Amino acid sequence: MNAVSSTARDISMKGAGYYSKATTGAKEVIDNATPMVLGAIEAMDFPDDGRLITMSDMGCADGGTSIEMVRKALTAMRAKWPSCPLQMVYTDLPRNDFSQVFRIIHGQTDIKSYTSEIDNLYVFASATSFHQNIFPAETLYLGFSATASHYISDKPANITDHVHMVGASGSERQAFEEQGRRDWESFLLNRTKELAPGGHLALFNFGIDEEGRYLGHTGGVSMFDTFNEVWAELRDAGTVTAQEYADTNFPQCYRTVEQFTAPLTDESNPVYQAGLRLKSVETRVVRCPYERDFTENHGDAEKFAREYIPTLRSWSEMTFASGLSPDRPVDERIAILDGYFDAYEARVREAPQGHAMDYVHIYLVLQKADN
Amino acid sequence: MNAVSSTARDISMKGAGYYSKATTGAKEVIDNATPMVLGAIEAMDFPDDGRLITMSDMGCADGGTSIEMVRKALTAMRAKWPSCPLQMVYTDLPRNDFSQVFRIIHGQTDIKSYTSEIDNLYVFASATSFHQNIFPAETLYLGFSATASHYISDKPANITDHVHMVGASGSERQAFEEQGRRDWESFLLNRTKELAPGGHLALFNFGIDEEGRYLGHTGGVSMFDTFNEVWAELRDAGTVTAQEYADTNFPQCYRTVEQFTAPLTDESNPVYQAGLRLKSVETRVVRCPYERDFTENHGDAEKFAREYIPTLRSWSEMTFASGLSPDRPVDERIAILDGYFDAYEARVREAPQGHAMDYVHIYLVLQKADN
Repeated sequence: MNAVSSTARDISMKGAGYYSKATTGAKEVIDNATPMVLGAIEAMDFPDDGRLITMSDMGCADGGTSIEMVRKALTAMRAKWPSCPLQMVYTDLPRNDFSQVFRIIHGQTDIKSYTSEIDNLYVFASATSFHQNIFPAETLYLGFSATASHYISDKPANITDHVHMVGASGSERQAFEEQGRRDWESFLLNRTKELAPGGHLALFNFGIDEEGRYLGHTGGVSMFDTFNEVWAELRDAGTVTAQEYADTNFPQCYRTVEQFTAPLTDESNPVYQAGLRLKSVETRVVRCPYERDFTENHGDAEKFAREYIPTLRSWSEMTFASGLSPDRPVDERIAILDGYFDAYEARVREAPQGHAMDYVHIYLVLQKADN
Repeated sequence: MNAVSSTARDISMKGAGYYSKATTGAKEVIDNATPMVLGAIEAMDFPDDGRLITMSDMGCADGGTSIEMVRKALTAMRAKWPSCPLQMVYTDLPRNDFSQVFRIIHGQTDIKSYTSEIDNLYVFASATSFHQNIFPAETLYLGFSATASHYISDKPANITDHVHMVGASGSERQAFEEQGRRDWESFLLNRTKELAPGGHLALFNFGIDEEGRYLGHTGGVSMFDTFNEVWAELRDAGTVTAQEYADTNFPQCYRTVEQFTAPLTDESNPVYQAGLRLKSVETRVVRCPYERDFTENHGDAEKFAREYIPTLRSWSEMTFASGLSPDRPVDERIAILDGYFDAYEARVREAPQGHAMDYVHIYLVLQKADN
């Protein structure tokens, strides 16, 4: 979609510093939870017998947000199993920029990589969907995935009065939750088949915590409600049609702790029966770096709005672009999207208090039974 | 380099049909030699014991030219070893467009892929240089590489009076041949370590055949001599400096049959001692599709020149761009390169007879000793 490429280009042209800041929050989520990954390695109980040990980051984007965690994990594995070759596999969808993944991991950018520090290490990429088998059976030892599995494989319905399932109700909400349930079970079943006995998964996903909090909805202005209100304003003003408004839905499901853990605690569930077990679950909120910078440092509402919107736009624009009729000329679609995010930015500029994209993650550590 | 990107864009904008034609010759080289690959599979003698079998295309570019060969190879392996998971690994350098590789292999383009036809198959990519170990020891069963290993890892000298080592002499020629020898040995040693006992390599590389023929030098107008003459004209006209002319050298070594086979026939060579053996070697010439089209079909010199130059430019422009001083503004560099290829095109248009980029390959099938 041209509208999306155009934004990607705008963002990339802002340079490396901009990019780093846009992913600071996502990186903090992973860095803060690295002890869970190291704990999983510590818990894996097999001898240093030269076997091939595979680790994976599934839904890796450019690999930059996980790089410090991966360095620590591979270093720990190298120390624990000195004779075992290590494979590190980055996965995402084919449209992902895998050249950038490789440039980062092979040390061709200004991000510090780990490949020169760890011997007998082999790095690969895969573009197989995590709703299918990425790896041969029983070859995966440490599967990691952060902030990826909220994307569902199919949009089960239109949401009448909102753009995200967190604002849906009734049968529409149910349809998204059911799709989310099926995809989560399929994700876990595929991983269980791939895991070596005793292998672990560390999965840090967007979800709804025990207090009902989720991404951008932690007590202040709700981000997804704002997305919806501004989009509905464009509909009411005639800028987008009622059909386009209805067609605009994030293909995502935010799951509760119970929904995440059900396949692991219900002994009749195929995932449980395949041998996957829950080792730990917890929820955490990681504060929005833009809101923090605004509140604690600069206090400049215009600057906050200007810096905050592009990070929202970077992952949400494709959803709004997909809602627009393909019959509209590309220029027209770009203009609508520009106007939409300008309107969101104006809201933040005019009343900045409460806007924040706080991250709310459910942290799961799982283990395949060691027979 | 902007000049290069600009050309890549120009070429990509010509569409899929153009692209297919530009790689027709390279694809023919592989398709015609597919029986050698199938013969290697036939010769591999191990039971259907569920082991993980890895095949690789090393220096794959977008994976399109080898796709029919890979389909046949994986189909043959699936039939021979029904219980064994298959891994197909595409390798190239980080700057390669791996997203395009994945789009092609996962069937998201109009090129017919094979992934839906073969079960228990896992596709990966690697951007590790083939001058290093790409795979863990003894895990590779079928290593394939076409038209890639003529690139050497370092340019050992400037060539005083030519742009390619095929036109060099004396100590300059020797320096390129020595670098080519070291890189070839290192390529083979790395692969030997990676090969499982009994594993095979099928390597189809640019080289110099028994009659002294090589790419674009098969009896008519010599392509590399023309590259050099036109570049020297720009030097003589003052468009490029003497230093820039001297700095312009293809980082390539075309090896003779003897040079390709020496590490496999000299029993004191580390490659031979590591257990790699020559099973077959032959040379073939694959006719230039543009020249054939001109000679056998249309006879239109202007059309021939217009279609022929972009395929040369697609792989040679980076070399000429690298020779130009970085002090020149980008626009100036682009203008020089445009003028250069225009001058080559004019030569072809004005005297088309004899111009042809015939492919000359040395086809090697190698096997790691089965203890």
